[in-house]
Amino acid sequence: MARTSLTITPLPGFAPTIGRLVGMLSYSRVTLLAAVEGLSLEELDHLHDAKSNTIGALLAHAIAVERWYQVLTFEERKPSASEEAAWAAALDLGDEGRRRLRERELSSYLEELAGNREATLAALATRDEAWLERPLPAAPEMNAHWAWFHVAEDEISHRGQIRWLRARLSRRGR
Amino acid sequence: MARTSLTITPLPGFAPTIGRLVGMLSYSRVTLLAAVEGLSLEELDHLHDAKSNTIGALLAHAIAVERWYQVLTFEERKPSASEEAAWAAALDLGDEGRRRLRERELSSYLEELAGNREATLAALATRDEAWLERPLPAAPEMNAHWAWFHVAEDEISHRGQIRWLRARLSRRGR
Repeated sequence: MARTSLTITPLPGFAPTIGRLVGMLSYSRVTLLAAVEGLSLEELDHLHDAKSNTIGALLAHAIAVERWYQVLTFEERKPSASEEAAWAAALDLGDEGRRRLRERELSSYLEELAGNREATLAALATRDEAWLERPLPAAPEMNAHWAWFHVAEDEISHRGQIRWLRARLSRRGR
Repeated sequence: MARTSLTITPLPGFAPTIGRLVGMLSYSRVTLLAAVEGLSLEELDHLHDAKSNTIGALLAHAIAVERWYQVLTFEERKPSASEEAAWAAALDLGDEGRRRLRERELSSYLEELAGNREATLAALATRDEAWLERPLPAAPEMNAHWAWFHVAEDEISHRGQIRWLRARLSRRGR
């Protein structure tokens, strides 16, 4: 975590308010990646108890949440039925997630997280502050600023759970 | 949660960027309060396992973190030795927290959370955007914007854990 900046400021390449938001998204992501660093397939798929989500499933959730808000904010539409179906297990977690979100290496999760984030930042770089603040065409009760804050917030909340779950993995002393 | 705004915008009474930050702090707090609503003393003090923090201890932690950053950002100094000593169990959690952070009703936690937040918002209302962005005199590696984002971030992370712990309280079906 040493290289993580403890400042929130405008960032080059983004409108000032968007840059500050990107700083929060990036900080949250760094802490998520630190929380899962080095986990094996077995650890990612470990179920703490019958009601838990695995750490792998929580990573799949973070991936699906980012995709969902990309569609909602950048493509300005609700996800299609086929997108919803593809993401449902990861978005909803629970029984379906426990059944389907398994047997995936950490590197695969990390690649998809990184690819999605690259697309998010590329899209945010082309937007302005009026876009950030106005109601979303596909969900007028929210604006893009809240939507992307919420992506960070949801990721942070599950990172808190991941830290808790990781501290109870039996194979290593953490 | 129905009354929670799903927008981040400038807010009356605050500089624009500070208002957006206040929106994030307030949203995070509403979700924390929802996560602990109605918990009994016994539930607040329930220890899930020997390494866990109780939900009460996590509320004490949120209180102490906000106080710590009030001192750092508004009083522009590091907490004194006596402040550090008073807050240590809540800031550090762990064994000392498990021993000392007990037997406190939810209403008592909520009152202190609300009082601290009122002080935070009153102080933020008097600050400008230059203050928010410049390095903290007492901790120049960070700025006030990051500090208060971090207060929200830490609260969200522990709220994730509180939700997990609450779902496993035996007395009620949640």
